[in-house]
Amino acid sequence: MGLFLSIKLNGGEMKMKAEIIAVGSELLLGQITNTNARFISSQLSELGINVYYHTVVGDNAQRLLKAVEQAEQRADLIIFSGGLGPTKDDLTKEIIAQHLQTKLQQDDAAMEMIEAFFEKRSRPMTENNRKQALVIKDAEVLANHHGMAPGMLIEKEGRIYILLPGPPKELEPMFQYEVKPRLASKLSDGGMIVSHVLRFYGIGEAELEERLQDLLEHQTNPTIAPLAGDGEVTIRITAKATSEEQAWALITPIREKIIQRVGNYLYGVNDDSLASKLVEMLIENKITIAAAESLTAGLFQSELATIPGVSEVLYGGMVTYNEEVKINQLGVSREVIEKYSVVSAECASEMASKVKEKFNADIGVGLTGAAGPGEHAERPVGTVWIGIAYKNLPPLTYELHLQGMRNTNRIRAVKTAIYRIIQLLEKEGYRKI
Amino acid sequence: MGLFLSIKLNGGEMKMKAEIIAVGSELLLGQITNTNARFISSQLSELGINVYYHTVVGDNAQRLLKAVEQAEQRADLIIFSGGLGPTKDDLTKEIIAQHLQTKLQQDDAAMEMIEAFFEKRSRPMTENNRKQALVIKDAEVLANHHGMAPGMLIEKEGRIYILLPGPPKELEPMFQYEVKPRLASKLSDGGMIVSHVLRFYGIGEAELEERLQDLLEHQTNPTIAPLAGDGEVTIRITAKATSEEQAWALITPIREKIIQRVGNYLYGVNDDSLASKLVEMLIENKITIAAAESLTAGLFQSELATIPGVSEVLYGGMVTYNEEVKINQLGVSREVIEKYSVVSAECASEMASKVKEKFNADIGVGLTGAAGPGEHAERPVGTVWIGIAYKNLPPLTYELHLQGMRNTNRIRAVKTAIYRIIQLLEKEGYRKI
Repeated sequence: MGLFLSIKLNGGEMKMKAEIIAVGSELLLGQITNTNARFISSQLSELGINVYYHTVVGDNAQRLLKAVEQAEQRADLIIFSGGLGPTKDDLTKEIIAQHLQTKLQQDDAAMEMIEAFFEKRSRPMTENNRKQALVIKDAEVLANHHGMAPGMLIEKEGRIYILLPGPPKELEPMFQYEVKPRLASKLSDGGMIVSHVLRFYGIGEAELEERLQDLLEHQTNPTIAPLAGDGEVTIRITAKATSEEQAWALITPIREKIIQRVGNYLYGVNDDSLASKLVEMLIENKITIAAAESLTAGLFQSELATIPGVSEVLYGGMVTYNEEVKINQLGVSREVIEKYSVVSAECASEMASKVKEKFNADIGVGLTGAAGPGEHAERPVGTVWIGIAYKNLPPLTYELHLQGMRNTNRIRAVKTAIYRIIQLLEKEGYRKI
Repeated sequence: MGLFLSIKLNGGEMKMKAEIIAVGSELLLGQITNTNARFISSQLSELGINVYYHTVVGDNAQRLLKAVEQAEQRADLIIFSGGLGPTKDDLTKEIIAQHLQTKLQQDDAAMEMIEAFFEKRSRPMTENNRKQALVIKDAEVLANHHGMAPGMLIEKEGRIYILLPGPPKELEPMFQYEVKPRLASKLSDGGMIVSHVLRFYGIGEAELEERLQDLLEHQTNPTIAPLAGDGEVTIRITAKATSEEQAWALITPIREKIIQRVGNYLYGVNDDSLASKLVEMLIENKITIAAAESLTAGLFQSELATIPGVSEVLYGGMVTYNEEVKINQLGVSREVIEKYSVVSAECASEMASKVKEKFNADIGVGLTGAAGPGEHAERPVGTVWIGIAYKNLPPLTYELHLQGMRNTNRIRAVKTAIYRIIQLLEKEGYRKI
């Protein structure tokens, strides 16, 4: 994972304002989530284009037209997603053509692709699929390599209109390969934006902001934007400059100040996740890991396994939901459980040691607790014990009192365990960033 | 889980138009997805309230104010999410108070909850957290049981304004328990909407629609709406009527016809998930289960463990990422692996049998395959073998050829395994619905 992201930018960047309009009644009915707006926004953000509004409107000609007219009042780049399909409901290009006082015409390349699609599947093409090959006259046609409806880019009276298909698997590559290069070439150059994200765990958003208050208040370039979610907090430092060197000269002193104050909670940068960071550290240092999971029931191991290459360091582990399984399969002593209960430092510690031993790993992790909704082993919901056994060191244990629902608590327990292992490895001299 | 959902509805239902405004620059930067709009929309849809627009606006006073003014032109119920937190960026309630020409005042109950929150964690409360206890004068305060910022409901000049916190784990229960009952009581009665969802696995959306085409085309009451996502397809049947009996008289014959044609793929109704349905069947019939997971690395067990009560039937299991672990810890024979490879029917079958035996369960499940990005055991990415051993029956095996990315493939393998076990139990005479 690289240390920073940087993108060449337009001099006129400050002028370009974008609005994203998603079209589809299924969005307003809550049947699907508008992930396209997030995707397009993040892509525009990399180009340094400001997005001021997202709008979602249903498959209704009149309301769509109003949304377009309104977007024209406040944006010079309007990106539509959805409504390019074969059915009667799909009316985005029809409305835009009418609004821009032009018409639709068949795109022969698109028509050929549609015919080829049906031929390949030996299925007859139904008549309504022809509609997908119609494009707005004078539009640049954007090829769809993952579906049948082509995209379109139209420039008129100083505004750019871009029409994209709704399915993310069609929209995302089309944006990446057809839209982004066109937008980049339309933006005159001369400036550059560099963005660097710091990722924290184990500190609340409010506390982090309080510790950085003076920095947050007085910064305009670079800007410093904190963001909290899922128990994590990130800080994005964004500099505008004429060269990458100049941008980093702005970012570096702020970055150092932040790390001085709250670096203890820093676990990664940019696209890192807790899991990717831990797996990276394990692979880099050839440290193997095994886990015995009770309340998390495999979620810790599964979370590590989201990262490719993990098989080098994760040999296996156990799910020990049941007390007898803890004793008979894992080898936790009955005395420990009877004396301290299954939700205890002692049990978590033994789970960690035993699974380390059994799987012959460098690190053993034990997770036990009461996820909810009911209490477990007479411990209140949200009580979690994490045990971490590392090589020959005495096992470490951590107690959590989580406040969430069952599955939030399970996820939080996994994240905290990962964070504590990263901390331990750092203490043992392995670099985390 | 109940067999249907029914909600008393307003006679004036057709008049109420809602708009959802999400506030937060992180949405416009594409850092997070607006899942709140989908959640609120689906809830309002159940109440029979039409949503005409979603809007997303950043943490900017002027643009937020414009979004409010515009929403007032086209909606009589305006629901805000986000911008109620402790930081300077959070300005939703400030702007609404100013716009409605009223002011903010401290809510003592909220203040007490905030103080208690910090006390419980033995952490000092920072000053900016006080801001979260401020509410709009004359608002009904909506309690936040999962966070610090209370919600608000204000009625003014025939419009309802509802302010909700941004984090979904706070917003969703607040909507469910604080907002929904209030909205329902504000809607005058006289009509009723009953909605029934059928859930399918193992059949594509296009094929399902084709088999039901004549039903889908000619229905207006009830409406029949198919929806695909994450490998599953659902059909929502929605009837409008003056009584529940009348609504069911409309739904039942359609439901029967659908089940006659595609009932083989039906796994549940309404809020069921594959995991909840399987765990329900296991608990009801006292059937225990254990799993040995390779490519899914604990995800199967973790998915079952999302359902409360699962500890009655899931005693434990293993993650056997590594070949030696499969042999030494689980007891798969080296000969089988050498002859057929770890990605084979034979290995999946042995994993299932061995884990069943080891954990003394009624069902053993084995999952092995090449999740990607690289091939595994010379099998192409997406090749998965599922083994299911049930009591003394010979183990069943299933081969999948998945087309997705690493983590989509892992999830799809888990879902298919769950679906196949549900099918098996049904064949053994246990009722699924």
